Amino acid sequence: MNTTQAQLGAVLAAGGPELSRLLHRTEARLAEVAEGHGAELARHASGTLAAGGKRLRPMLVFLCASDAADGRLAAAAVAVELLHMATLVHDDVLDRAELRRGRPTVFAEGGRLAATATGDLLFSRAFAELAATSSEEAVRALSTASSALARGELMQREDAWREEVTPERYLERCRLKTASLFEASCRLGTIFGDRGDLAAPLGRFGERLGLAFQMLDDVLDVSGPTERTGKPRGADLLDGTVTLPLILARRLDPELGELDLRATVTGPAQAGAVCDRIALTGALGEARRRALTHVAEAKATLTGVELPDDRRAALDLVADGVVERYA
Amino acid sequence: MNTTQAQLGAVLAAGGPELSRLLHRTEARLAEVAEGHGAELARHASGTLAAGGKRLRPMLVFLCASDAADGRLAAAAVAVELLHMATLVHDDVLDRAELRRGRPTVFAEGGRLAATATGDLLFSRAFAELAATSSEEAVRALSTASSALARGELMQREDAWREEVTPERYLERCRLKTASLFEASCRLGTIFGDRGDLAAPLGRFGERLGLAFQMLDDVLDVSGPTERTGKPRGADLLDGTVTLPLILARRLDPELGELDLRATVTGPAQAGAVCDRIALTGALGEARRRALTHVAEAKATLTGVELPDDRRAALDLVADGVVERYA
Repeated sequence: MNTTQAQLGAVLAAGGPELSRLLHRTEARLAEVAEGHGAELARHASGTLAAGGKRLRPMLVFLCASDAADGRLAAAAVAVELLHMATLVHDDVLDRAELRRGRPTVFAEGGRLAATATGDLLFSRAFAELAATSSEEAVRALSTASSALARGELMQREDAWREEVTPERYLERCRLKTASLFEASCRLGTIFGDRGDLAAPLGRFGERLGLAFQMLDDVLDVSGPTERTGKPRGADLLDGTVTLPLILARRLDPELGELDLRATVTGPAQAGAVCDRIALTGALGEARRRALTHVAEAKATLTGVELPDDRRAALDLVADGVVERYA
Repeated sequence: MNTTQAQLGAVLAAGGPELSRLLHRTEARLAEVAEGHGAELARHASGTLAAGGKRLRPMLVFLCASDAADGRLAAAAVAVELLHMATLVHDDVLDRAELRRGRPTVFAEGGRLAATATGDLLFSRAFAELAATSSEEAVRALSTASSALARGELMQREDAWREEVTPERYLERCRLKTASLFEASCRLGTIFGDRGDLAAPLGRFGERLGLAFQMLDDVLDVSGPTERTGKPRGADLLDGTVTLPLILARRLDPELGELDLRATVTGPAQAGAVCDRIALTGALGEARRRALTHVAEAKATLTGVELPDDRRAALDLVADGVVERYA
């Protein structure tokens, strides 16, 4: 059993049988959605759905609900996971990625046209699932997140190859492209979980956690090892995506400060060399430290909130799991 | 004044000042959406939105509502137009199209990454607009249409280069990729226009009209002239998209029946030659005749429905406009 599995086991134990039941229901519904919308989607999406992933966002939905679980909670969990998958499928088209989680991507199997349409379909089904709950507040939460994800992608394109991006702008990008859906997941949990009064603090918990998640992911892209990421070190650099480690390193190492990314990073070897240089400055430790500050803020948000002990414990474990994942 | 403009003038006259007011409000809101979600969207989407188009789907929303107009009608109209635009932006990425309506596409200006994200953002905003109406029925109608559009795209990919596609399967593809949003537009009009009792017949009106629209569009791709389409004749053939004219022509001309599309249509000149051959069989006339049958069915649906005279007249004019557009 690896760390992630152990962590998941601990969360499930803290969340009780209700959490396991809801997660099973989510899996079953995701499979139904993949099979129930035409042979084309079934072929392209089933693999993506079955490949799993951590189901971190559905878990946040459930853990932010009170125990008296509403049937619509599973619909919300399915919706956030479908939206997440839609963005992964589109990202794989954009990155021309052949593999994800060790399986061929929709892009690799069906080409960019099928993958773009599959992503659009998953998008649509996310909203369809949530529409079935009849909650305008919920649909609004999902569409706000969905817009933010797309804006984050646009911003990343906009900022490509711009070495001078500020930490503030980088953080805003993380908020849009990752933290917004974490936040929405928590909010949806409160909406259907009879916890509407906690929408703001639990939403903030999700947002802080999402920021940390993205920042640690960006550190891992520079630090490796590649066995963990499934892609060469410095994949972000090869894309022209300027993340916090480089932003910080440029201030610490004058030569990196002068770096012309586009001219220098012409292949994986050059990207690896820049990663090594970034690591030498100590920027990775600093970026990691900043990410952990967000995890601490997320946990601190919980302390001010009245929650059953087992829920608080489970949410704390999810927060620790995000850190562990990148330890 | 060209035919389309004359037709539009006639519809506006029949629809009264309320229709003009609502269409203006739709334009204003579309501009707001384009400007209000970050500098990136503003740059990429403003052009697309401003380039106009016929706003046929918003018009259907308004014309299927009763006169006692609900403020949410404009939101629904904006939502269907945003969804339509999202699919156009994604289609342009897939087709690597440089121009649409005489303007550079988002793909041409921003590249495929920006265009994919812009499409996703327009998608999200469509649902966000509709979420503001608090109508679950409306969100469901839009997500059903949105799923159908994506399924239609997937089916088209699936059927690419398959000369043996049946007319029935072709029709199902038209229903998914075009008619579903026409139908949803009409249904949304009835939902917010105090005409819920007419959702089924007016939805059917939209669906039949959408089928005709797509079928006539496919005829035009073969018949030209290219000034009307803005792309070379036989663009569908070059894509491997088998449409009704070819399906019918293959039955009439044994040599076309033997045609290996992928091996034959290797460039615009060869596509033009196949178009000429299709035209010689008389298949274009037959395809057009079938499309007109759907227009007649659409109009016949209206006769069984209690509608104010001016509304019926306006809807009839919209139906005629679809035919005129391709005359």
